[in-house]
Amino acid sequence: MTLIRSWLTAANDPACPFPLNNLPCGVFSTPGGAPRCGVAIGDQVLDVAGMEKAGLLHLAEKPLLQAAAWNPLMDAGQPVWEKLRSALMGHLREGSDTQDQLAAYLHPLSSVRLHLPFQVTEYTDFYAGKNHAFNVGTMFRGPENALPPNWLHIPIGYNGRASSVVVSGTPVRRPWGQLKGPQDEAPRFAPCARFDLELEMGAVVGKPSSGPVTVAEADDMIFGYVLLNDWSARDIQAWEYVPLGPFQAKATATTISPWIVTKAALGAFRASTPAREKPLLPYLEEPRPMLYDIQLSVELATEGGPATEICRTNYREMYYSAAQQLAHHTTSGCPMRVGDLLGSGTISGATKDSRGSLLELSWGGKEPLTLPGGGTRSFLEDGDTLTLKGQCKGEGYTIGFGDCTGTILPALADPYAR
Amino acid sequence: MTLIRSWLTAANDPACPFPLNNLPCGVFSTPGGAPRCGVAIGDQVLDVAGMEKAGLLHLAEKPLLQAAAWNPLMDAGQPVWEKLRSALMGHLREGSDTQDQLAAYLHPLSSVRLHLPFQVTEYTDFYAGKNHAFNVGTMFRGPENALPPNWLHIPIGYNGRASSVVVSGTPVRRPWGQLKGPQDEAPRFAPCARFDLELEMGAVVGKPSSGPVTVAEADDMIFGYVLLNDWSARDIQAWEYVPLGPFQAKATATTISPWIVTKAALGAFRASTPAREKPLLPYLEEPRPMLYDIQLSVELATEGGPATEICRTNYREMYYSAAQQLAHHTTSGCPMRVGDLLGSGTISGATKDSRGSLLELSWGGKEPLTLPGGGTRSFLEDGDTLTLKGQCKGEGYTIGFGDCTGTILPALADPYAR
Repeated sequence: MTLIRSWLTAANDPACPFPLNNLPCGVFSTPGGAPRCGVAIGDQVLDVAGMEKAGLLHLAEKPLLQAAAWNPLMDAGQPVWEKLRSALMGHLREGSDTQDQLAAYLHPLSSVRLHLPFQVTEYTDFYAGKNHAFNVGTMFRGPENALPPNWLHIPIGYNGRASSVVVSGTPVRRPWGQLKGPQDEAPRFAPCARFDLELEMGAVVGKPSSGPVTVAEADDMIFGYVLLNDWSARDIQAWEYVPLGPFQAKATATTISPWIVTKAALGAFRASTPAREKPLLPYLEEPRPMLYDIQLSVELATEGGPATEICRTNYREMYYSAAQQLAHHTTSGCPMRVGDLLGSGTISGATKDSRGSLLELSWGGKEPLTLPGGGTRSFLEDGDTLTLKGQCKGEGYTIGFGDCTGTILPALADPYAR
Repeated sequence: MTLIRSWLTAANDPACPFPLNNLPCGVFSTPGGAPRCGVAIGDQVLDVAGMEKAGLLHLAEKPLLQAAAWNPLMDAGQPVWEKLRSALMGHLREGSDTQDQLAAYLHPLSSVRLHLPFQVTEYTDFYAGKNHAFNVGTMFRGPENALPPNWLHIPIGYNGRASSVVVSGTPVRRPWGQLKGPQDEAPRFAPCARFDLELEMGAVVGKPSSGPVTVAEADDMIFGYVLLNDWSARDIQAWEYVPLGPFQAKATATTISPWIVTKAALGAFRASTPAREKPLLPYLEEPRPMLYDIQLSVELATEGGPATEICRTNYREMYYSAAQQLAHHTTSGCPMRVGDLLGSGTISGATKDSRGSLLELSWGGKEPLTLPGGGTRSFLEDGDTLTLKGQCKGEGYTIGFGDCTGTILPALADPYAR
């Protein structure tokens, strides 16, 4: 795939994250205006809600882009997803005759505020990165027992908390929680001392299901992907998670990128899951490549300090694709709905600098990271800003998601003060 | 508290589950009509949606009872909850002068269809029954290690799947899933062979929160309670749940009663949690009685056979109240929303006949139940109908929830046949 040229020249820059090939879906507002659907192109947001209202985009009998969320458009089904992409390609392509009409619907990205791009119906988080599972397992149980016995057979997941999903840029307050360290005689209620990030991709479900679906059907149900940071309180998690899994440790916040990059935009970057170490049951077999070659990185900036890249990896590192995860999710008959969000699990590569969490990067705090500006990090400190970045590199163009960022606010002095 | 007499004489029967003291909230439809809010009284449903539309109930500037869910009314806040209860008391009390006006809004319960009473926003299930946790722990780890170390300190919970919550009467299809028994060399994909019930109460959150709340505040946030059956696939659960907790084993269905019994109706039946074996951290201390004296039972009817009571217990058996669970749920800053549903965890008493799951009643299948009509049960078989019942006994009156029932359909022959 090569660059599709637009009359918006900024979109033709090989480094621009929003070329015509991309057309990612977000929700934006201008000062004093209501949040509405927009699409990023070059250094602008195209007000597709305004275009639909003005009759420049006709997708269905009823309006689909007027809500502050992409759920109605997703709910309209894949033919409508394609109709929108095709219509926008026509309007924005070099030589389009509607260029003059579109000027009123373009707003500089630098002038708008971005909101959560869709209403998160339910949120599920997986544990499908083998290096991550192996690293964490080794720390807790030793390398011989690192992977749980089911890990090579099941895309292990747990239900997360949709109410805690926030858009990039939302500050994240260090949580309180019940903690009990190995030296503590009794548990105590205190601010989390081991607050961490998890570098993940999120898949957005755009089509509902009411019974088990195949992996191929699951792939068709996915509307697009976001960057996702599953903030994690490691000390709360260690004390609470046996026997029913993570709960409050993962409920403070999950940050996603402001743009959903559609499956159509990612089509040129499909990649296969790695060779199976044990054969999968047929219901989980991947009929075609369903991972994506997405380069990922994490930057940490201390308060007032410069940003340092602390991790560089790729979504291809996952052992299970989102389609495999979604297919497994439906085996029990669990109904899936438009707006469901599936976190991939932490994406760690095989090398030390490709680990997607501080838990792994600092090996449980035993090998703190040294920051170039001075200081070290085992876990996150107040004022730290974490930024996840993702991109696909095509021939002469880049597909980006927008940054997925959050700054750590100090814990409340007294969480019950009113 | 004694009976509050109504001019609807059926409501004054001491055995009637819906006296004027109760006024539970449901959603009903008459043949050809749209689902709308109703309140049970005697052997009738009062069409409160119709009354609001006709100006007989004025609760707020905007209508609150026209949706097919009680969420808008809950969202309006506790003063409005009280206003509704007080207005209905006025209309339905013996001697009311609006009796003639109300006739048009009463429908025999036997003539209506009942729907899910509220839109379930997110669903959390707890593990707060000590006898249940001890029984299950004993089966899996022996009596010395039965309770996990955190159990006496944390109301252990996990996020469930809101999309799988259904109203009483909805058939429940036996799920497929990934299984691996102790004798199996490799996992297989097959219908669940150990399908079970869990007798629980559900608390319905009626007020949102955005940060940690105290137990007293949490109690204020609860709108009411339902009966809840958390259907569980024990064989799927055993293979999947380490390390991240139950996932597909609990995602087939969770059945709730058609009526939400409000906190106001339950006020006379408040009971304290039992004495603490280890002191709780202050954030979890119960400032006043927050459990309820609700008599619970489970009936099993084989296909075409009579119903047999297989369990009799009481909600008082719980170690943690819903208010304590909700307070813990918010410690991390996790936002709670109107319509969130909290399952209590399985309610088992100390005696064998008071155990709230077949896993416990048949001791993991080792001691099958003998049914009076012949046959035995270790786990549920196709065609079995399970019915949960709950009641509070006041002086001369009963508070009921309506049955919480479901019949097991056989697993699909091929879950991927289209």
